[in-house]
Amino acid sequence: MPLPSTFDPGVVAALSALDAAAVRHVFFVACGGSLSIMHPAKFLLDQHAAIPSDVYNAAEFTSRAPRTLNEQSLVILCSMTGTTRETTAAAEFARAKGARTIGLTVEPDSPLGKAVDHVVGFEAPYTTGVPIDAKNSNYARIYQLVIGLVAQAGGEDLTQPLSISLAALQPAIDRAQDQWAPMFADYAPRMAAHDVIYTMASGASYGAAYSFAICVLMEMQWINSQAIHANEFFHGPFEVLDKDRAFILMKGLDSTRPLEDRADEFLHRFGSDRNIMVLDAATLDLTGIDERFRGNLAPLIFFDTLWRFAYKVAEQRDHTMMEARRYMKKISY
Amino acid sequence: MPLPSTFDPGVVAALSALDAAAVRHVFFVACGGSLSIMHPAKFLLDQHAAIPSDVYNAAEFTSRAPRTLNEQSLVILCSMTGTTRETTAAAEFARAKGARTIGLTVEPDSPLGKAVDHVVGFEAPYTTGVPIDAKNSNYARIYQLVIGLVAQAGGEDLTQPLSISLAALQPAIDRAQDQWAPMFADYAPRMAAHDVIYTMASGASYGAAYSFAICVLMEMQWINSQAIHANEFFHGPFEVLDKDRAFILMKGLDSTRPLEDRADEFLHRFGSDRNIMVLDAATLDLTGIDERFRGNLAPLIFFDTLWRFAYKVAEQRDHTMMEARRYMKKISY
Repeated sequence: MPLPSTFDPGVVAALSALDAAAVRHVFFVACGGSLSIMHPAKFLLDQHAAIPSDVYNAAEFTSRAPRTLNEQSLVILCSMTGTTRETTAAAEFARAKGARTIGLTVEPDSPLGKAVDHVVGFEAPYTTGVPIDAKNSNYARIYQLVIGLVAQAGGEDLTQPLSISLAALQPAIDRAQDQWAPMFADYAPRMAAHDVIYTMASGASYGAAYSFAICVLMEMQWINSQAIHANEFFHGPFEVLDKDRAFILMKGLDSTRPLEDRADEFLHRFGSDRNIMVLDAATLDLTGIDERFRGNLAPLIFFDTLWRFAYKVAEQRDHTMMEARRYMKKISY
Repeated sequence: MPLPSTFDPGVVAALSALDAAAVRHVFFVACGGSLSIMHPAKFLLDQHAAIPSDVYNAAEFTSRAPRTLNEQSLVILCSMTGTTRETTAAAEFARAKGARTIGLTVEPDSPLGKAVDHVVGFEAPYTTGVPIDAKNSNYARIYQLVIGLVAQAGGEDLTQPLSISLAALQPAIDRAQDQWAPMFADYAPRMAAHDVIYTMASGASYGAAYSFAICVLMEMQWINSQAIHANEFFHGPFEVLDKDRAFILMKGLDSTRPLEDRADEFLHRFGSDRNIMVLDAATLDLTGIDERFRGNLAPLIFFDTLWRFAYKVAEQRDHTMMEARRYMKKISY
């Protein structure tokens, strides 16, 4: 089955070289921010094919050495710069086990790019300061890989609706930025004063909550955080909630939305509206995005708009976003 | 292949009724503290059989509805009281999909006990105030299920060494309590003064870090927390580390220990010894525990000893452990 011409050539090449029907297991492997896109990729695969999959931090993957990894495995890895040592090591480990490897990276000539069977390039915002179209992001490319794999393995062919949806994504993000700008301006000064800010989501959006917690709040702003799963919230974490506690809740459009709705209700019942910021994808104009992919694309909108919010928080804290690191890439570790 | 008489009768009955070789996928499903034992269960299965598995929060599982769930799936659920609504609903959902279900609970007559094909009972410490033998805990029972399944599915038969190891566990825990009591007495006053305490681990021990973070620190002590994976730490979270930041690091004995060693080195390099408490299983007397299971049983030792530590922290904070809840089981939600 041919993949649409609107798919990225790297994705098409990687999938064309694959015997999709022979793939028995998919491993989604990366670290940190790149790991965060693996959760929604697995969510997409879980809902569209009976192909088992795992999401692993790259070092965990290599040292765990799951027995399910073999010649019938497809291992999809991601590192923005392609220089994440653990991810390159994971690619080499997977290839040594006979698995097929696909590496997503901005730099095809990087160590990761050289370690994998197939490289899929993508564009990253905020690395060059030049805005990109979200249809060229790592999220978009991994979604093409998953939906392309599903189609080629004999599942439903949703490649065209995905392409159409991805083409409509950036305009939807731009509209969301405009719509949420007043909310962000309102919340930024208060959020900037918090020493702890939790993020929360479920389903396809959990990865966006994770990346905002660990890569933005903790890494760039040195604000304490945790990405709490919206239902796990009720099994322990909710006890930290009071009127002074800050939460950012993402309400997506996938089948787990009722979990986020329940958390929303509880947060507003016992927390303060002033410290609870809710990004609700149901309030957005998503024209052009197929109903079947709205849940999967909502986290890209959360991710992108929250970056703008993070810059506003940083201004308030007199803390730059891009340079302020104590350790990362400043020392050896 | 007969299971050893030292295995729990409920485990033996559940596995005997199963065509183990026909199981194509295992789902480990629960919420909160009960979910925390599912991570090490999957770790054990990953390292001993090429059977795919997933760990899901119960509400996520039901609303996600993964396509891998079918008549060839085994779904193992756990709820201490058996009254966790999401977990009972997940059992019913799984059975409706034709999957085989096994429910671990202290109360066989509970809603969960009635919703599953097979009930496996266990004993829980701290619910009655009466100490239990760790070989009767939910951890021990789920390990018996996994290793029994591996043996019956044609994999290596490690049922005897597991039984021998579980019999030696409680004495090892008791020795660890004695060994670490001075460390706990030293750290408790300082830890009690922190508003944020992170836990960290990898591999088999990650679940123990998760349960201590969300069920003890957050739920019982209203202390902010996150269970940070020991390698993910280096991809964002480590930027919150300074001399005043509190961490509890668990160093286990499984194949991911190098990840915890690296985190240990970094924590002591940039944090303060006074705020970094390390539980290192390599310092313990584990006589009687088979080398092949030391990595899997270390988290039970962490879990149990840290409860004692939590009581010491609670005393310092003038905050009771068992009663102080704002929301849990006090209001409807």
